[in-house]
Amino acid sequence: MPSYKAPVKDVLFLLNDVFQLERYNNLPGFAEATPDAVEAIVSGAAKISEDVLQPLNQAGDRQGCTRHPDGAVTTPRGFKEAYSTYAAGGWLGLAAGTEYGGQGLPYTLAVVINEFASSANMSLQMYAGLTQGALLCLLTHGTPEQKRTFAPKMVAGEWSGTMNLTEPHCGTDLGLLKTKAIPKGDGTYAISGQKIFISAGEHDLTQNIVHLVLARIEGAPAGTKGISLFVVPKLLVGADGGLGPRNGVSCGSIEHKMGIHGNATCVLNYENAAGTLLGQENRGLNAMFVMMNEARLGVGVQGLAQSEVAYQNAAAYARERLQMRSISGPKFPERPADPIIVHPDVRRNLLSIKAFNEAARALVLWTAVQADVAARSEDASARQSADDHLGLLTPVIKGVLSDIGFDNTVRAQQVFGGHGYIEESGMEQFVRDARIAMLYEGANGIQALDLVARKLPRDGGRAITSFFNEVGAFLKDNEGSAALAPYLVPLRRSLGHLQQATLWFVQNALTRPDNAGAGSYDYMHLLGLAAMGYMWARIAKTALDRKRDGDGIAARMDAKLMTGRFFMERMLPETGAQLARIASGADTMMALPAEMF
Amino acid sequence: MPSYKAPVKDVLFLLNDVFQLERYNNLPGFAEATPDAVEAIVSGAAKISEDVLQPLNQAGDRQGCTRHPDGAVTTPRGFKEAYSTYAAGGWLGLAAGTEYGGQGLPYTLAVVINEFASSANMSLQMYAGLTQGALLCLLTHGTPEQKRTFAPKMVAGEWSGTMNLTEPHCGTDLGLLKTKAIPKGDGTYAISGQKIFISAGEHDLTQNIVHLVLARIEGAPAGTKGISLFVVPKLLVGADGGLGPRNGVSCGSIEHKMGIHGNATCVLNYENAAGTLLGQENRGLNAMFVMMNEARLGVGVQGLAQSEVAYQNAAAYARERLQMRSISGPKFPERPADPIIVHPDVRRNLLSIKAFNEAARALVLWTAVQADVAARSEDASARQSADDHLGLLTPVIKGVLSDIGFDNTVRAQQVFGGHGYIEESGMEQFVRDARIAMLYEGANGIQALDLVARKLPRDGGRAITSFFNEVGAFLKDNEGSAALAPYLVPLRRSLGHLQQATLWFVQNALTRPDNAGAGSYDYMHLLGLAAMGYMWARIAKTALDRKRDGDGIAARMDAKLMTGRFFMERMLPETGAQLARIASGADTMMALPAEMF
Repeated sequence: MPSYKAPVKDVLFLLNDVFQLERYNNLPGFAEATPDAVEAIVSGAAKISEDVLQPLNQAGDRQGCTRHPDGAVTTPRGFKEAYSTYAAGGWLGLAAGTEYGGQGLPYTLAVVINEFASSANMSLQMYAGLTQGALLCLLTHGTPEQKRTFAPKMVAGEWSGTMNLTEPHCGTDLGLLKTKAIPKGDGTYAISGQKIFISAGEHDLTQNIVHLVLARIEGAPAGTKGISLFVVPKLLVGADGGLGPRNGVSCGSIEHKMGIHGNATCVLNYENAAGTLLGQENRGLNAMFVMMNEARLGVGVQGLAQSEVAYQNAAAYARERLQMRSISGPKFPERPADPIIVHPDVRRNLLSIKAFNEAARALVLWTAVQADVAARSEDASARQSADDHLGLLTPVIKGVLSDIGFDNTVRAQQVFGGHGYIEESGMEQFVRDARIAMLYEGANGIQALDLVARKLPRDGGRAITSFFNEVGAFLKDNEGSAALAPYLVPLRRSLGHLQQATLWFVQNALTRPDNAGAGSYDYMHLLGLAAMGYMWARIAKTALDRKRDGDGIAARMDAKLMTGRFFMERMLPETGAQLARIASGADTMMALPAEMF
Repeated sequence: MPSYKAPVKDVLFLLNDVFQLERYNNLPGFAEATPDAVEAIVSGAAKISEDVLQPLNQAGDRQGCTRHPDGAVTTPRGFKEAYSTYAAGGWLGLAAGTEYGGQGLPYTLAVVINEFASSANMSLQMYAGLTQGALLCLLTHGTPEQKRTFAPKMVAGEWSGTMNLTEPHCGTDLGLLKTKAIPKGDGTYAISGQKIFISAGEHDLTQNIVHLVLARIEGAPAGTKGISLFVVPKLLVGADGGLGPRNGVSCGSIEHKMGIHGNATCVLNYENAAGTLLGQENRGLNAMFVMMNEARLGVGVQGLAQSEVAYQNAAAYARERLQMRSISGPKFPERPADPIIVHPDVRRNLLSIKAFNEAARALVLWTAVQADVAARSEDASARQSADDHLGLLTPVIKGVLSDIGFDNTVRAQQVFGGHGYIEESGMEQFVRDARIAMLYEGANGIQALDLVARKLPRDGGRAITSFFNEVGAFLKDNEGSAALAPYLVPLRRSLGHLQQATLWFVQNALTRPDNAGAGSYDYMHLLGLAAMGYMWARIAKTALDRKRDGDGIAARMDAKLMTGRFFMERMLPETGAQLARIASGADTMMALPAEMF
């Protein structure tokens, strides 16, 4: 039976010591987030994740969701009660405005519980995550009436949310979408069409489901410029906010998937379903991007979350499983064999995961703080700079954290040997669940293209330049520190690789766009590694400072310093190979005729 | 519905053109393997794999195996008939001696059909693969009577074989095994104990099952030096070879696994089961190694096989699926969108798999030919050199081909976007099935340790020195060729990385064995990449030669040359990062206390 213990200390170390959340207490909601309050919130998030969500994870995978002949969907035993408990704890509306029943706290703290809940039970967390994304989109683009009608119910967990983009013939290429919206003359629309892969599309956790649906208004232009976004509730909502009859949307089937069996992935059929426009006509993609960006960060967090829970179980197993003697001589001669954690290759596997998890968590929280600044600061230049950061790092966090997070579930499973292949161990579920994160919310190849083709060149490369400047300034500020040199030297080298790769695009991709496409994936990972390397350098600096506080914390800070060195020695060197691949360009890969593949 | 077409042309190109099988026609069995005969055999292997085995693969995964209350196990519908057809075609005994009803053909050809059959239906092929491994072990170590009793039935497919090593408390560390064997005084033994993870341990495909079982004879020394190997048939065999009553072995349960659902993975309980000693007392591990080495090559082939079938389906999808326009402008303006194979990143994914598959297949066949030489040559020095090759490259093929093969099933699944996560596509089954290959027959970390701690230093490093010499000679022989330079320059660089890594071990691991353990995994992959780089250089040289034969073959040879260049530009640069990781040593990873993981 797998277990999970939320990394509360690590989160508090990052928030308080590395990123010093208190520095932001001029932002709305941050003043309430005192260190004591943050500790209470993070500990509460840990508790509900460990005690309520995690115990349902393995059983939820086995039982899965069931669609009944009438189109109703039942979630696994216990999910409904757990979701109610989660909602009742105020976790859904942690960052939502108090006027809708939320707590108005930093979004950063919502990201923390999203990690914990995803580690504990990814399928169940998704119902909450989609609701939060839809809520954000409604609050950003909704009319006062839409907000009043839907937001309080979603914050309270009485209604949930979904996002409806994909159709059978289009996922990435939304310009091809066919779902249509016909104005009914009363300001509402009749929506008809078929959507597929709709996570949490139908279920029994809430009274109502608020679908955000992309559709084309009759007569709108072809392509992406003719797509609008609609709010389409599962049950119609009366003028008094009460629930009315079924709307014209039904679940045609649920998918049989590799993993996340506890989350219902639905085919939704819309037949003259009543909907209201969300945001402006033909600007639906733009409106949906609010939700997609939040969702992309959330998916990156899922990669980290699965990596973390898989790691914890692998580390526990490695401390317990006795097999073979240490290559340097028996370490526990009184036992029949040494625990496998004495073996260097087992440590290599575990440290690869640990060094990623801790840097990825830092990267996520650093970015979440920027999201708070972008949304809440009164200083326009601070908002702009935070927004640049967010735009640049969102595809990186989505793509890199889900890729490496998945790889890490495989590594963790490997520590179990053959036992990891058996369902009972729970390790193979982490692999199957983590796998989806690389695919949905834009497959990772799309994240890479978004990064290289859109985010890099935007505003004359302002975002990446600002990243270079920030890391460069850190390197310069600390160049005299001998204790930091083992971190700064590799970071400087990898930053150089990133700068060379960026320059290579400037020189080679403007005239030949295929060169950008061909190098995009490696560039996304190169930026991800460099950013995580920067996180480790900052963590190391903080750990050196905190170590002076003495015995209570020294061992933990030493572990940080060693884990960071592992990252620098074993993981960051990859950036050299990434640069070489990028600089090899597109010629070879574009030369092969399609029929010769 | 996934499909499969065996790579007949590629195999024939490798056997005839690159490795020139005809050069070995002084070896027993090779004279019969004329180019025409080889083509007929390979085509026949393709046909049965495509027509008989593959159509059962997806249904077999869904249905799985069923254990009945009496311990009997039913395999998925159609498996029994397909296995009979396979046996009747003579495929099980392709390389076995004619005196046992085999065809006496090169083992190399048996490896070819193992790849095809594994691509088509890995679960079903395993029943055959284990039978072949057990057969080889019996033929190598058995008494004349054991051979006479068991071999003809196994060759004919009437009886199958298994290997029984693992127990609940020991997988890697066989020294801990507890299954005991008590001499009954008549030359037979009573075997008692529990074995787990026994693939094909119980099933309905054959009349009888021949278990090869590791056990400790009463009073034998502790540890690995007290382990013997026994032949324990499921049904007792009379002096006339006829089947008698049940022996004392039964299937206690079958495992619920991540994949290979069509293969029954059993807990086998032995209670005073009658067995005969195979090979010498207390030399059981040594005898089992014959089977394990063959099995390890076979598992490497499984990695390649899953990579190949996943690739084929991804390439077909990429040619058909219309989504977005090429970044360099529409390629099929008459269609609603371009097929995704126009996108550089999709090509990068596909070419990464293709470039691996073709080099891995070459590496496997090159090594299989060496296995034939080692087993059949009359020239002692040829046998020794072939045996060195086999010892060095077996762990590399097992570890690297299963690792990258698995990664490639994930890449191929990625090409499908969200559709790859849905069971119906068949892509996620390839991922789940391929995953086991990294775990069984010695988890890949064990392969790496075997390579670095045993195979490298053996005989003063004779095997790796001979590898360096062979690749070095090839580089020197071809250094004047401008056409080959794009292959030779990167190969020379990576060979240099491999040599530096080897030297680093000599200088740093003798005094500190943890340095060997810490670098072993990267070294295994570094050697694998360098060996595949050498394969590509040889393929490129052959392709340049064959291209002169004109139009009929030029396009295919051009594709080889381009795919090889992709390997050199995009995949081989990894060796630099691997060397950096190896040379960073063990200090950091050994420093972290176990409780801080």
